[in-house]
Amino acid sequence: MKLVPLFDRVVVEHVEENETTSFGLILTTNSKEKPQIAKVIAVGKGGMVNGNEVKMEVKVGDNVVYSDYAGSNVKLDGKEYVVIRQSDILAIVED
Amino acid sequence: MKLVPLFDRVVVEHVEENETTSFGLILTTNSKEKPQIAKVIAVGKGGMVNGNEVKMEVKVGDNVVYSDYAGSNVKLDGKEYVVIRQSDILAIVED
Amino acid sequence: MKLVPLFDRVVVEHVEENETTSFGLILTTNSKEKPQIAKVIAVGKGGMVNGNEVKMEVKVGDNVVYSDYAGSNVKLDGKEYVVIRQSDILAIVED
Amino acid sequence: MKLVPLFDRVVVEHVEENETTSFGLILTTNSKEKPQIAKVIAVGKGGMVNGNEVKMEVKVGDNVVYSDYAGSNVKLDGKEYVVIRQSDILAIVED
Amino acid sequence: MKLVPLFDRVVVEHVEENETTSFGLILTTNSKEKPQIAKVIAVGKGGMVNGNEVKMEVKVGDNVVYSDYAGSNVKLDGKEYVVIRQSDILAIVED
Amino acid sequence: MKLVPLFDRVVVEHVEENETTSFGLILTTNSKEKPQIAKVIAVGKGGMVNGNEVKMEVKVGDNVVYSDYAGSNVKLDGKEYVVIRQSDILAIVED
Amino acid sequence: MKLVPLFDRVVVEHVEENETTSFGLILTTNSKEKPQIAKVIAVGKGGMVNGNEVKMEVKVGDNVVYSDYAGSNVKLDGKEYVVIRQSDILAIVED
Repeated sequence: MKLVPLFDRVVVEHVEENETTSFGLILTTNSKEKPQIAKVIAVGKGGMVNGNEVKMEVKVGDNVVYSDYAGSNVKLDGKEYVVIRQSDILAIVED
Repeated sequence: MKLVPLFDRVVVEHVEENETTSFGLILTTNSKEKPQIAKVIAVGKGGMVNGNEVKMEVKVGDNVVYSDYAGSNVKLDGKEYVVIRQSDILAIVED
Repeated sequence: MKLVPLFDRVVVEHVEENETTSFGLILTTNSKEKPQIAKVIAVGKGGMVNGNEVKMEVKVGDNVVYSDYAGSNVKLDGKEYVVIRQSDILAIVED
Repeated sequence: MKLVPLFDRVVVEHVEENETTSFGLILTTNSKEKPQIAKVIAVGKGGMVNGNEVKMEVKVGDNVVYSDYAGSNVKLDGKEYVVIRQSDILAIVED
Repeated sequence: MKLVPLFDRVVVEHVEENETTSFGLILTTNSKEKPQIAKVIAVGKGGMVNGNEVKMEVKVGDNVVYSDYAGSNVKLDGKEYVVIRQSDILAIVED
Repeated sequence: MKLVPLFDRVVVEHVEENETTSFGLILTTNSKEKPQIAKVIAVGKGGMVNGNEVKMEVKVGDNVVYSDYAGSNVKLDGKEYVVIRQSDILAIVED
Repeated sequence: MKLVPLFDRVVVEHVEENETTSFGLILTTNSKEKPQIAKVIAVGKGGMVNGNEVKMEVKVGDNVVYSDYAGSNVKLDGKEYVVIRQSDILAIVED
């Protein structure tokens, strides 16, 4: 059983505390938007969003920093996911 | 007697408590939008919405997670439905 | 004497209590928008609305469910009408 | 001396109490917008409004119902007028 | 020394009390926007405004009624002017 | 060391009290936007801004009146500048 | 480990107190937006943003003044970064 996001939506899963530490990544914010790091679990196919063609740039397995202002939490089989739009992703975290 | 949604509207029906449990899907939220799971009952034909051509991606029988921020409840023949836009659907739940 | 709606406007009349019961349709809402059922009395000719070409999909006699967020009440010859935009119509109720 | 409205503006004059009664038209509202009946006194030439070509559909002498949310009152030679946009007009009242 | 308005801006000067009386024009308002009569002093050259081509329809010397919601006051050489956009002008007052 | 504005941004410097007097320009306001006079110090190259091509009309040395609603103050080498968009400029002050 | 910004996003790092002094740059603000100086650390590839093609004008190493209204703070390996959009950058500071 899995979540298949539509259009420009991306399903992410929060990185575990331990993993966060290994990253040395701590997130703070100076605005209403609280940035978040998470691993990409599923990616929509893109397509027309509000009349604009959206091409997906992130892929499954990417670690991303996003602004959670519009994210929606979903719990499936005991795991917690967040569904965001690709445009809510600020940056990919690379090694 | 049935609801025939216009354009990009989708009629959904909330999945029963029991079904929800079989899914193992629990929904929580960290924003104003409360995500929801529901079964698709009827799908509009798409077409021009605010000047943008919308193609419908969901189909009758799909289980979807949506953000109920703009959903409208309708009770017909003793059953409760919610009418949403396809763009309010975050993801399809597949087995 | 009659109301001739402009562009994408639609004139509707609320279905009588009795008719509502025969439909078995009860409307509740979980948002600011209160959905409504009504019979279509007159339909605008469509055309350019905010730069977008609008084609009318509803016709006189249709029973529709709409969101009354932006509807305006008009009383003419002792009858009450509501003028809405076609985009405020969520679904057509068919037998 | 007269008001010559620009672009999609329309000058209307409120119908006298007596005339209203002959119409049998009473206006109430269930939203912030208060609908109004009025006679069209002058019509702009249409043209580009916010980048969209607007063609005028109403003509001098039409009785119209409009939403006065954005209307501006002007008093000229002792008479009161209201300047609205054509898109604020909900319907024409025909005999 | 003079004000040369850019793009769709128009410089207007309020008509003197005496002139207003000769017009017989008194302005009241039933909304947040307070309409105003004024004489056009300078007109921008039009051009692209938010991606839309704007052609100027008013000319120096016109008496106009405008909504002062967005007007900015400027005092130059002891005279008071208001800088508005052409789209804030509701109508031209003609004899 | 200098500020090089991007796209449609313009760097302006407030005219000294003395200069203001020589202009005879006093600024007051009847809205939330407080108009301002200033000398243009640097002009961006224009280009695509929100999908619209912007051509710069003001040049270094122009005295301009602007609405400071969105201006940002920057202090560099002891001097105070304001960075605005060209669309915030209401008019050029010419002799 | 590094932040790779998407589309029109730019990763910046606040200039140290000492550097700020060498610049002689002090930032104050007269609006809700607080301008900021920072060094560009990483630049997105540009591309389609809300249907508009965005070309990147800033490059790694540029010192920029930006409005932090929408910036998001990210702490990685003990260093603090801010992720902004290129359109939030007001000007480049050149020697």
